Amino acid sequence: MSKQKKLIIGLFGFGVVGEGLYRVLQQTPSLNASLKRVCIKDPAKNRNAPGNLFTTNKNELLNDPDINVIVEVIDDAKAAFDIVKTALLNGKDVVTASKKMIAENLPALLELQNQTGRSLLYESAACTSIPVIRNLEEYYDNDLLHSIKAIVNGSTNFILTKMFEDGLDFKQSLLLAQQCGFAESDPSLDIEGYDALNKWIFLLTHAYGIIENPEALLFNGIQHIQQEDAAVAKSKNLQIKLVAQAQKLKNGNVAAFVLPQFIPADDHLSFVKNEYNGVVIESGFADKQFFYGKGAGSLPTASAVLSDIAALRYEYKYEYKKLYHHTPHNLDNSIRLRVYVSFEKTDIVPREEFDWVEEFHVHEKRQYIIGGISLERLKSTNWWREPGTSLIVAPDPIVEDMEIRSLKKRSLELAGIF
Amino acid sequence: MSKQKKLIIGLFGFGVVGEGLYRVLQQTPSLNASLKRVCIKDPAKNRNAPGNLFTTNKNELLNDPDINVIVEVIDDAKAAFDIVKTALLNGKDVVTASKKMIAENLPALLELQNQTGRSLLYESAACTSIPVIRNLEEYYDNDLLHSIKAIVNGSTNFILTKMFEDGLDFKQSLLLAQQCGFAESDPSLDIEGYDALNKWIFLLTHAYGIIENPEALLFNGIQHIQQEDAAVAKSKNLQIKLVAQAQKLKNGNVAAFVLPQFIPADDHLSFVKNEYNGVVIESGFADKQFFYGKGAGSLPTASAVLSDIAALRYEYKYEYKKLYHHTPHNLDNSIRLRVYVSFEKTDIVPREEFDWVEEFHVHEKRQYIIGGISLERLKSTNWWREPGTSLIVAPDPIVEDMEIRSLKKRSLELAGIF
Repeated sequence: MSKQKKLIIGLFGFGVVGEGLYRVLQQTPSLNASLKRVCIKDPAKNRNAPGNLFTTNKNELLNDPDINVIVEVIDDAKAAFDIVKTALLNGKDVVTASKKMIAENLPALLELQNQTGRSLLYESAACTSIPVIRNLEEYYDNDLLHSIKAIVNGSTNFILTKMFEDGLDFKQSLLLAQQCGFAESDPSLDIEGYDALNKWIFLLTHAYGIIENPEALLFNGIQHIQQEDAAVAKSKNLQIKLVAQAQKLKNGNVAAFVLPQFIPADDHLSFVKNEYNGVVIESGFADKQFFYGKGAGSLPTASAVLSDIAALRYEYKYEYKKLYHHTPHNLDNSIRLRVYVSFEKTDIVPREEFDWVEEFHVHEKRQYIIGGISLERLKSTNWWREPGTSLIVAPDPIVEDMEIRSLKKRSLELAGIF
Repeated sequence: MSKQKKLIIGLFGFGVVGEGLYRVLQQTPSLNASLKRVCIKDPAKNRNAPGNLFTTNKNELLNDPDINVIVEVIDDAKAAFDIVKTALLNGKDVVTASKKMIAENLPALLELQNQTGRSLLYESAACTSIPVIRNLEEYYDNDLLHSIKAIVNGSTNFILTKMFEDGLDFKQSLLLAQQCGFAESDPSLDIEGYDALNKWIFLLTHAYGIIENPEALLFNGIQHIQQEDAAVAKSKNLQIKLVAQAQKLKNGNVAAFVLPQFIPADDHLSFVKNEYNGVVIESGFADKQFFYGKGAGSLPTASAVLSDIAALRYEYKYEYKKLYHHTPHNLDNSIRLRVYVSFEKTDIVPREEFDWVEEFHVHEKRQYIIGGISLERLKSTNWWREPGTSLIVAPDPIVEDMEIRSLKKRSLELAGIF
């Protein structure tokens, strides 16, 4: 009855994820997969596996006709792309965990898949243990996907949780995240939002058929969030999370961004603490659905890689249905975003950047303003990225053109507070 | 680029779900599907659709060579099976929402799928809008699935939420559930646990390759839960939910049951209120994952049916991988369950049924006992199903043999309280 393909794996990388995968594979004999060879960079390092498994010569894996699956969990995006490209061209299926590599090479990777007919899977690169790509491809395969909103970076979510629930400061929280193995080797990738941005780039492809460079998307990290911002959040019964969001607009386009966001207590994402990830998918008729699971750590990542490997036994491929079988959507920056921006008290607040203002407060050390700004304008300016300034998206942030007039009116009424 | 199959649908049933599906199909032109004919029972009823769509002759759908998909959303399990069987034998793919029909005819339905090579999909029958079958088949396709625990019945969850959060009594809550369209036409199917039991029967197949009759599983509903039980729950910071559970045992078998259960505040299922469903999947290395979405209502059901229809364009089939490609697991009743049982004060408590006792309390109107009972023993006795008696599973309920001795010892120490 079995139609399983026997998998012979060549693995690139034996860091925490690679070693985690090695251990997971040993404990899943039913997988019908064997690890033939592991390519590493540093042959001098001690490894918890038999020495004859290792090589430093990538061609011993890429040119081995026995190996039919290349699994790539290295840290270097450029080297990862070369490995993936060669592997696909050599007729091997590939599983990768490199978000940066995927985000930066998406058109080339799509072309390679079409050209070779091989499978390239990367579920662990999206939300680690949550099967979000699979569900977007297979289950939300229709034009009813209204919005998708997610916490896709476990490291920043861990840091924010420790800062705002346990009262640690930013540095202490980051150190703890690193000690727990929840941060990338270069923590700025997480903290400044690049990791979330990279993930969002290819999740937009699976959700809406959008193909864009990372530069096309408005994003920021959590590096400038202040304890005073947390105090404002608490006073309003909100949390602060780094949220990736995409929403279909009335004109058929999609608005998308990755920014810190205020999250109300009744929002599904408020449930997502520490290193966990969460995805809220809103679709016509089914209302909101919520997926939740571990978003960082070597074993959850290894386990997601394992599920991709398992799928290769049945020759599973992403079909990129939103791209090839539907009319792909376009990214649209014409919306206004409702944002909170806080400044040091000595700063001059750039009121002219706001299309309307809803609140303006001056506190002891800082001042803040809540209002609407064009997403396009935020993309093209940098004043809000300066140290000392923090921008946090308000709940229900997306304002399409038709609604602006009434808010502008409200803004005029409130203008007296300046 | 499109490889989509053009779907011509014959629909059985035009109740709330059938009509919901009709509306959903009209709003998803990208689906490449058209509804050719609808078979109904009562031709006299007013329908919100053109009259020439309807027929009362099932053969006009089942024998129509143009129709390649039969969608069945009727209430009568026996009639549903006949329709599904004939449709498959006539070479048509089938989407069904009839949990009872599936649970009662699983071996025959598996045989029909093997024999005809056609596809039978029923995602909406499991957790309505949550794609749990898909994820069990495709993503948790390995031997690392430790446990699955779920709220699979939106109606009882709605009733329990209204009883224990809004202070309504059972009757009021049930009436409200019916008014909202969250209860089956025969509410006893929901309330007495049959609906959850039926769903669990086929979810066990997709999770563990288990094929059993509904009678094989220990189950109960929420019909005997008292306000006093709720008070006990509140005093311990617990909620009461109707939970379906399955867990891999150390001996490789699986223990499974559907019973009311005390849920601690930090359990993922405590997040699941009103008509929502939730599924917690615990797998090796990935830890716990949580899926959450609407578990009742015509449009969420219709939307899940739609996702199955969409999958048929790509000739998607359940592969029943745990059954055919892994070693299927066996159901095992040899465990002990930690349970709370409450009685009217005048009742005689059957202490001899318990393997050990952890607590015994006598309150003004009722008394309750917490202890361990053999699952086998619960299956074969009925004293705990009597009106006035309520049995609620304790948190971490499954006790395998090896742990019992120490608990028995504790039981002896506590025996003095009788």
